[in-house]
Amino acid sequence: MINIAITAGGTSESMDGVREITNISTGSLGWHCLEAVLSKFNTPSVADFHVHYIHTRNAIIKGLAENDKKKVSFIPVTDAESVFQAVDKLTKEVALDYFIHSMAISDFTFSYLVSHVKLAREIEALQHPDGFTAEEVRYLLENPRSRYSTGEKISSDEDILVGLKRTKKVIPLIKKNNPNTFLVGFKLLVNVDETELLHVANELAEKNRCDLVVANEASAIGETNHQAILVKGKKIIARAVGKSEIAKLIIDSMLKN
Amino acid sequence: MINIAITAGGTSESMDGVREITNISTGSLGWHCLEAVLSKFNTPSVADFHVHYIHTRNAIIKGLAENDKKKVSFIPVTDAESVFQAVDKLTKEVALDYFIHSMAISDFTFSYLVSHVKLAREIEALQHPDGFTAEEVRYLLENPRSRYSTGEKISSDEDILVGLKRTKKVIPLIKKNNPNTFLVGFKLLVNVDETELLHVANELAEKNRCDLVVANEASAIGETNHQAILVKGKKIIARAVGKSEIAKLIIDSMLKN
Repeated sequence: MINIAITAGGTSESMDGVREITNISTGSLGWHCLEAVLSKFNTPSVADFHVHYIHTRNAIIKGLAENDKKKVSFIPVTDAESVFQAVDKLTKEVALDYFIHSMAISDFTFSYLVSHVKLAREIEALQHPDGFTAEEVRYLLENPRSRYSTGEKISSDEDILVGLKRTKKVIPLIKKNNPNTFLVGFKLLVNVDETELLHVANELAEKNRCDLVVANEASAIGETNHQAILVKGKKIIARAVGKSEIAKLIIDSMLKN
Repeated sequence: MINIAITAGGTSESMDGVREITNISTGSLGWHCLEAVLSKFNTPSVADFHVHYIHTRNAIIKGLAENDKKKVSFIPVTDAESVFQAVDKLTKEVALDYFIHSMAISDFTFSYLVSHVKLAREIEALQHPDGFTAEEVRYLLENPRSRYSTGEKISSDEDILVGLKRTKKVIPLIKKNNPNTFLVGFKLLVNVDETELLHVANELAEKNRCDLVVANEASAIGETNHQAILVKGKKIIARAVGKSEIAKLIIDSMLKN
């Protein structure tokens, strides 16, 4: 039995029940990868296989052929923490052969909201004949006393600040729980050239033990004009245009391993 | 010719090209209002009419009967500023009879990102033998020098703050440009009882000259269990459960005027 995990979409971190911080991702490339896997694996010549599809609410989900449906389990998630829990559980329960990690997971989650006016007063009050240190300010910024309490109405009459704290990183879990999984990582950058893209892709590969990295730039990720480079062993092994072609190349490169 | 405007969905404010702050709204109630308008107006007995449907990307758009399609113009918008521009243009160009304003528009838009560490150092440097005022801190919080520049890579190794600034209010435009428009306002609150809901609905009606206010509480807004009160002249004139029933009641109350 071959086990494949795919993550798709962008996470959303809830702020106050009516607002959220969302990582922009349609999940379309993840879906194309699923389709490429199904068309590659769903033949009599291939051993039995199963796809574990972890997706956010905003990720595109299309219809599947009857024959394909039983090959896929859908695992819905919401924020970064829920992805962490879902991936930890899956990677502990299933010996995954391949992990295609295309989801855009937030590096930060909501901590608090505070008005400029109230925070300014709190900072003013830090003053003291002996002075204060940057460390004391940082401590205050982590959890200001004047923050809005949960459920309190946010005044739209003054500017506000949103405190964000780091989320737990998901990608290190994959190799930690299953060192033999073939891991495909994704990197989306804004306003960079190919040299920088390759540099960051190599960093990602090294830091998180990715076997293959798909790197792309935000201005070129439309459905048909999506441009990406595939990076393996510090080298660009393929260039592709269009999500469907990128997905096919990912699966081909993954299976060639 | 009867002209009706409907706004639906939640706006998204872009942060850095890969993250955005979104107001949670499926736009479903707006779509139900459109369907209720079409079923009420699209009869030979009613004078000709047209619906101007202003919607965000995440708002639900369903199929329309051929007969209905030519009765509706779709106007896509993204962030609060784009809604302001679209509503200003429409209300200046068309003498609207009815305006059903169900869209969740962000009160705030993105201003900057800054790391805790850098902002703390900038605040530390405010110290001076003569002291500093809360006003000076507020000025710094409006536009810190140590903010991330556009396109700069956000480090996920330290906590960050997001500065948000107020957006221009859209709802006052409606009566300002067309004093005779019948205006239906919406209010979604979190964790309040009906007394508070009525209080805030009255405030909205007074401040923005709404002729009818639909008020609801966030824990009860699912597709079939959506509970809302309709407020007119400081009184609850109807209670409804389910988006379809709420929409019908809105149109009925609007036309009874």
